[in-house]
Amino acid sequence: MEKFEIVKITPEGLTGIEKGVSEEVPLTIEVNGSEIATILASPFHIDDLARGFLFTSGMIAEISGIRSLYIDMERFRVVAEFEGNLKDFVFKRIYTSGCGKGVIFHNPIDVIGKTALSNGLEITAEKLVCLMKQFLSRQTEYCDTGGVHGAALASSEEIYVTREDIGRHNAIDKVIGASLAAGTGMADKILLTTGRVSSEIFSKVLRARIPVIAALGGPTNQAVKLARVTNITLVGRLRGGRGEIYSGERRIL
Amino acid sequence: MEKFEIVKITPEGLTGIEKGVSEEVPLTIEVNGSEIATILASPFHIDDLARGFLFTSGMIAEISGIRSLYIDMERFRVVAEFEGNLKDFVFKRIYTSGCGKGVIFHNPIDVIGKTALSNGLEITAEKLVCLMKQFLSRQTEYCDTGGVHGAALASSEEIYVTREDIGRHNAIDKVIGASLAAGTGMADKILLTTGRVSSEIFSKVLRARIPVIAALGGPTNQAVKLARVTNITLVGRLRGGRGEIYSGERRIL
Repeated sequence: MEKFEIVKITPEGLTGIEKGVSEEVPLTIEVNGSEIATILASPFHIDDLARGFLFTSGMIAEISGIRSLYIDMERFRVVAEFEGNLKDFVFKRIYTSGCGKGVIFHNPIDVIGKTALSNGLEITAEKLVCLMKQFLSRQTEYCDTGGVHGAALASSEEIYVTREDIGRHNAIDKVIGASLAAGTGMADKILLTTGRVSSEIFSKVLRARIPVIAALGGPTNQAVKLARVTNITLVGRLRGGRGEIYSGERRIL
Repeated sequence: MEKFEIVKITPEGLTGIEKGVSEEVPLTIEVNGSEIATILASPFHIDDLARGFLFTSGMIAEISGIRSLYIDMERFRVVAEFEGNLKDFVFKRIYTSGCGKGVIFHNPIDVIGKTALSNGLEITAEKLVCLMKQFLSRQTEYCDTGGVHGAALASSEEIYVTREDIGRHNAIDKVIGASLAAGTGMADKILLTTGRVSSEIFSKVLRARIPVIAALGGPTNQAVKLARVTNITLVGRLRGGRGEIYSGERRIL
């Protein structure tokens, strides 16, 4: 966070205060010698972001695919090396880079081709409501700045990892990257997010084969259709003891 | 909106209901014969989105720069023709397309080079709070789905235009596009947004030369710095009669 002197509007009038604001840095990602993207992100957990981004963007099939990962936090530069060439990815990235919600290297609709997930874990609605409450209570930077999104990976019992970023895509990439690095299996876990669920957010969860996504925001119709085709449980607007199960209700007891 | 049969989680238990969900469509934008981007967007006010996108992305300096605009809502395709070539834009788009928050055709930091805005309008904090309340009360789709962001252009007295989209960048592009098409001057107006304010959101407002941006969410440090350099009033977390003036407080009485 960076501190600024600002003026607060209150019912009693205007008052000067010092305020912490979320930092935003342009993170350039270089893969096999090519600069492939510049992501505006929060300047922490950059290694998780890089791993998650390379994985959810479809560049690597598993964490072991990264031969080397060098992070320069002075010039906000990630230099990654892995086997294979970038041609296909770069072509597709250019084609879809206009998306309003982050860079993707494949058409989200492609994911329909993937095999559906097995039923995996089950969780009670009460427990899911409770996990979301715990998750939100851990959003440290959000409380201070209101400028970031959060994401977390949880089992049906507890939260494993929580990450924040100015971009909701980045927060999810960080959680997935941290889970890959820690070797945490995701096939029996739940992804929690403070954001809305578009087809792109959904495709990250599907790529990580996480069977349940629970969001504070609502989903788009494409995310609901993809969730139903791939047997992923999608719960939206989960707050205040209420929520909406758009897909895979068999996992919610 | 598309209707789905879903299961609602309530303190009393699970119940089946029919629920409207925000639609998401992949909108392909073709300029001078080249496909330049595919934007995931809400399928309404596409003409405003196209005009606003071409303007805020820096492709056209004014609305008259668009020679022709053809919108195919069956194939979700926008075909625009304007003078000049795309080479520079396309190069820069590739370079920055990794941003977590929408495609941009120039580095947001470039905008610092632009001349600062004159002081223009003034507004009382009470009136600004009231405009945000009015704006939020007009978020029709958000109330139903929780899946969209909203933006609006207002004077110090009233709201001129309100738009919604699954992407917060798109909602702002729609408002700017609609204002350009209507010939509404923006130099004495206020941009209202339900989102957070990153450097990219800020650069859209600066490009439209709108002197005041008021947001429900918080800004990033880069947005605050850009606002201070360019003399734009940036108010964040404006809700419940409270708000935070990060820049240009001289316009808030």
